[in-house]
Amino acid sequence: MPEIKGVVNGNDNHDEHDHSYNKVNGEEFRNGNCQEYCCPGNKCTAENNRYPDGSVRLRNPHIELMDQDILYHLALGSESHDLVEMFGDVKFVCMGGTPKRMESFANFIMEEIGHKLPTGTTLLDISQYSYRYCMYKVGPVLSISHGMGVPSISILLHEIIKLMYHAKVKDPIFFRIGTCGGIGLEGGTVVVSEEAVDAMMNNYYEVPMLGKLVKRPAKFDRKLVRELKNLADPEDPYVTTSGKTMCTCDFYEGQGRTDGAFCEYTEADKMEYLQQIRNQGVVNIEMEAIPFAALTHHAGIKAAIVCVTLLDRLKGDQVMAPKEVANEWQIRPQKLVARYIKRYLQMKGRTSFEGHGSMSVKSPRRFKLVQQESETFE
Amino acid sequence: MPEIKGVVNGNDNHDEHDHSYNKVNGEEFRNGNCQEYCCPGNKCTAENNRYPDGSVRLRNPHIELMDQDILYHLALGSESHDLVEMFGDVKFVCMGGTPKRMESFANFIMEEIGHKLPTGTTLLDISQYSYRYCMYKVGPVLSISHGMGVPSISILLHEIIKLMYHAKVKDPIFFRIGTCGGIGLEGGTVVVSEEAVDAMMNNYYEVPMLGKLVKRPAKFDRKLVRELKNLADPEDPYVTTSGKTMCTCDFYEGQGRTDGAFCEYTEADKMEYLQQIRNQGVVNIEMEAIPFAALTHHAGIKAAIVCVTLLDRLKGDQVMAPKEVANEWQIRPQKLVARYIKRYLQMKGRTSFEGHGSMSVKSPRRFKLVQQESETFE
Repeated sequence: MPEIKGVVNGNDNHDEHDHSYNKVNGEEFRNGNCQEYCCPGNKCTAENNRYPDGSVRLRNPHIELMDQDILYHLALGSESHDLVEMFGDVKFVCMGGTPKRMESFANFIMEEIGHKLPTGTTLLDISQYSYRYCMYKVGPVLSISHGMGVPSISILLHEIIKLMYHAKVKDPIFFRIGTCGGIGLEGGTVVVSEEAVDAMMNNYYEVPMLGKLVKRPAKFDRKLVRELKNLADPEDPYVTTSGKTMCTCDFYEGQGRTDGAFCEYTEADKMEYLQQIRNQGVVNIEMEAIPFAALTHHAGIKAAIVCVTLLDRLKGDQVMAPKEVANEWQIRPQKLVARYIKRYLQMKGRTSFEGHGSMSVKSPRRFKLVQQESETFE
Repeated sequence: MPEIKGVVNGNDNHDEHDHSYNKVNGEEFRNGNCQEYCCPGNKCTAENNRYPDGSVRLRNPHIELMDQDILYHLALGSESHDLVEMFGDVKFVCMGGTPKRMESFANFIMEEIGHKLPTGTTLLDISQYSYRYCMYKVGPVLSISHGMGVPSISILLHEIIKLMYHAKVKDPIFFRIGTCGGIGLEGGTVVVSEEAVDAMMNNYYEVPMLGKLVKRPAKFDRKLVRELKNLADPEDPYVTTSGKTMCTCDFYEGQGRTDGAFCEYTEADKMEYLQQIRNQGVVNIEMEAIPFAALTHHAGIKAAIVCVTLLDRLKGDQVMAPKEVANEWQIRPQKLVARYIKRYLQMKGRTSFEGHGSMSVKSPRRFKLVQQESETFE
């Protein structure tokens, strides 16, 4: 692993979770103050939004007054499940689009952090009865699928933030591990998002609430972004970069593709547009960055997005990479996030978990021999 | 089945697929003409948007020039698969949120229309390798999951409309079979959507394209809505009604719930808002109606949404119905759509499909006995 400067110091440092907010397109936001948009009447800092011990404080006075809180889309409940017992030790919440990718990630991170399951057990999809999202738990890591698009990830974020609260999780860190289209980047490039903008280049999440539009700044933790970038290995056979991420609500016309069911612009119009957003710093386009950045920021939770590009949009619209290639690419963001998690746990001395009765291999060679032997007896 | 007046006459009648478009909130649209919003430079009618034989014409000149068209999120391609052979006989496309519900619907509609599978075969998820959506085919019916929210269903609609085109399907009819929150309706009520509005009460789908906002009218086929309502059976132990459907991009704050991770309004604010939209004709809230109405309308495809309410939002926010009750409720929209499909196929004389080598039960009693007998031999 390369020399890492100043990465994951073992303290959760919120210093850089600042609220300076600049004009991008449209209105100007007050620097160093996002009261008007995200915290009416409060001084909004990550610290203010947590209890002194770092556990997540909900910005919703109604929850504490409820008899029970059903996390409907996760098939969990505050009174039906002992959420502190089940999730109290969580530190990292990793999200990605498909159930399959997040099941792979669960197995991958288990290997990486040396987490052991008790003999005769296997990972179980905790939310299998929701039929909406999948959720796996590997020690301090949750691996969850968020589906496609802003509404799907926003439902998940509301319920996961509430889960963190009910489970009394301290200073959790959220990652989105995704795929995207690159702007001037080869397929297979890893991108850490520095900023999120919507399809109109606004860097906020606009939600109609009770008939009024409410804006929330879509910001990432700058220190976390820097730490992730520093974890790129010069030996990696691919580029890891960072920049502005555009989040759209449509995959076809919304991303300037010409291969949807409808297209009322020309190839030249498209190219002009893509060049234009490239000049404004956009390096990739995906479909979840805005609510992911805005809702985690609003909850005072450190968060980052690491995506791999599946194609360079300056060269085409269709994803043509063969399945095996695309599958290898999708592991790249997982590797970067795994390095972060591993390093963090090493610093905290939490890498080796007590594996009571776990399958434990003494000699890999002999283990293999025994396996082969038993396979001959059908 | 009740007496049905003027329902499904066996001809695809586009007469009522009109384009009158009224002011709801904000701008006024020209009556009888939606050129400015959905069909620049063309007279926009369903007929104009099809080939003379009724097959779907894409409003995208680029597709015909492409070597191949990969329907990425369906794991299908125009050159890798013989789409005419596979899907040419499709007439109905039924969509719903979860893979599980749409697998159930596939089995339910198979029973309803008397479709038989060849011996030794079972339904296969055609899009299993997409890891995004599921798709089952039961003779002339496709049963597909669309995930949650506007972006997820819009990706699916783009690809399914292209699939209809590649497969040369004639005059397809699309249904969304969903769940929703009711406004002043008991849980378990079936709602046929008459109109779709967004969270700001706009009845159009607004998509940023190349940095500009494009509006497309979100309209349903009025005749189809009426036909569906007429299929409600007075014997049904629940109410079937119709009205305006609100489509939001957020489940919590976007629908005025007080049980999300954040809430910056009071219970009284919420109730005032819900009463207000109720007074404006909104009977239910869900998360896909706007693009479903707008994209099918834009493609000249007849479409309707039938949802069941899971709760009355005037009485609460949390979905508390036990799983068994909710499961029974979810079958209600399926039943209504099945009645339509069955009646249509009966009119067309297409109900009995040639079941080559299908499992065919001669005597249900003996069949049962043989089954029980073989079960005793473990």
